Amino acid sequence: MRLRLDLGYDGSGFSGWARQPGRRTVQDEVETALGRVLRLDSVAVTCAGRTDSGVHARGQVVHVDVPDTAVDGSALARRVNSALPDDVVVRAVTVAPAGFDARFSASWRRYVYRLCDQPHCLDPLRRGHVLAWRRPVSSVLMNDAAAALIGEHDFAAFCRPREGASTIRTLLRLEPMRPHGVVEVTVVADAFCHHMVRALMGALLAVGEGRLPVDEPARILAARRRDSRVQVLPAHGLTLEEVGYPPDDALAARAEQARSRREPAR
Amino acid sequence: MRLRLDLGYDGSGFSGWARQPGRRTVQDEVETALGRVLRLDSVAVTCAGRTDSGVHARGQVVHVDVPDTAVDGSALARRVNSALPDDVVVRAVTVAPAGFDARFSASWRRYVYRLCDQPHCLDPLRRGHVLAWRRPVSSVLMNDAAAALIGEHDFAAFCRPREGASTIRTLLRLEPMRPHGVVEVTVVADAFCHHMVRALMGALLAVGEGRLPVDEPARILAARRRDSRVQVLPAHGLTLEEVGYPPDDALAARAEQARSRREPAR
Repeated sequence: MRLRLDLGYDGSGFSGWARQPGRRTVQDEVETALGRVLRLDSVAVTCAGRTDSGVHARGQVVHVDVPDTAVDGSALARRVNSALPDDVVVRAVTVAPAGFDARFSASWRRYVYRLCDQPHCLDPLRRGHVLAWRRPVSSVLMNDAAAALIGEHDFAAFCRPREGASTIRTLLRLEPMRPHGVVEVTVVADAFCHHMVRALMGALLAVGEGRLPVDEPARILAARRRDSRVQVLPAHGLTLEEVGYPPDDALAARAEQARSRREPAR
Repeated sequence: MRLRLDLGYDGSGFSGWARQPGRRTVQDEVETALGRVLRLDSVAVTCAGRTDSGVHARGQVVHVDVPDTAVDGSALARRVNSALPDDVVVRAVTVAPAGFDARFSASWRRYVYRLCDQPHCLDPLRRGHVLAWRRPVSSVLMNDAAAALIGEHDFAAFCRPREGASTIRTLLRLEPMRPHGVVEVTVVADAFCHHMVRALMGALLAVGEGRLPVDEPARILAARRRDSRVQVLPAHGLTLEEVGYPPDDALAARAEQARSRREPAR
């Protein structure tokens, strides 16, 4: 049987999601905790968004295949939490519907990048996940620049190159807002290539500061080449907030389709 | 001239607000940073709420008297922030109106205590300021118990005793709510005695868990004696959110009145 786990973590203490020899990773912690609680020698989890080193998550989704048994999700979540270090939490455990694959069934990933550009929004309780920026930024200019990037495009200009991997993605939302002083940029896409969110943020921030004209990010996108004016912003401002899935009866077809495209899941 | 500073801090790394030999305190950090930026040998700041060890603040207010000079509040806030460690921030600096005293002019202090009692509200990015509680809690029961404590009372049952200090306070709001899963209890009073918020929380939590009848906190209050069933909850769930002041023309009178009562300001 397949379980779905909804996870959160503080990325500060991790070399990202994916297991790497000699590094502390979220995947390792989750697999170790599940192995201990379920008394299994080896556990392999698959996640929806393989976050980079330092990136946080509040809505990461993973699946894990375990021997059939009666599952009380709420009790299991509590037991796994007791086995996890305090910078990773399981927010829910449920039996996954048929056809569910945390990575390939996902229809979209939602990230939020947060930055504070003035003293009045500085909040020491949030400093681990909100970038402090020394110069004032216009979220209005950022918004204008963002609108031109929506849609299906080749995002090579904002991706760290990876042999043979497609860089075509569908950007569904890119919305800078300033709800309570902090600039929060919501980014939703079917999937992301490596560094894509933080490079998009770098381009928008350059516009927001007046260093780049409003229409320049769209030109950089069209050029399909990395551009030295586009900075990859620090990881700690970025949080994976939510992963979206289609209705249960469409999970298998969605996974089939995504698997055939073999998107790198980020 | 007198400046007003609005401060935030992560209380985790501090032995509270008030200067103590050999301890790291917020007051020390703020006075040192101000001294450096203003090039003064000694600086003495006065705060509105002397938070205990481990308690956080987002809306602490202090005043400091400095030689007359032209003040650009926003530039000064940036300079002081550069001189402060990253767990303390100045959110605003303004020239204080006549009669302003951060401590004695204050009409009320607003604290919020936060706790998460179920896996789905666990947020690793907020674990430093939200208490994780293992048993489920009813915020509805807590609310019923809270209503009976509002008003002017002798809060001796919820205060750490202090020689000669009055324990009469006016509790203006005590409102447990559950906005997004997390139980958030807003507490507003003219002032607080030592441990008062965390002891009130301990009494409400015992009700919320069903360990105490709903009308018991009011009985404990009326008894005016500390009660072993009332636990003082951990400091890290508590944040000083805001301090309220009367209109400028009433600041001096309010300070006069408060000074004559010599309330311990918490």
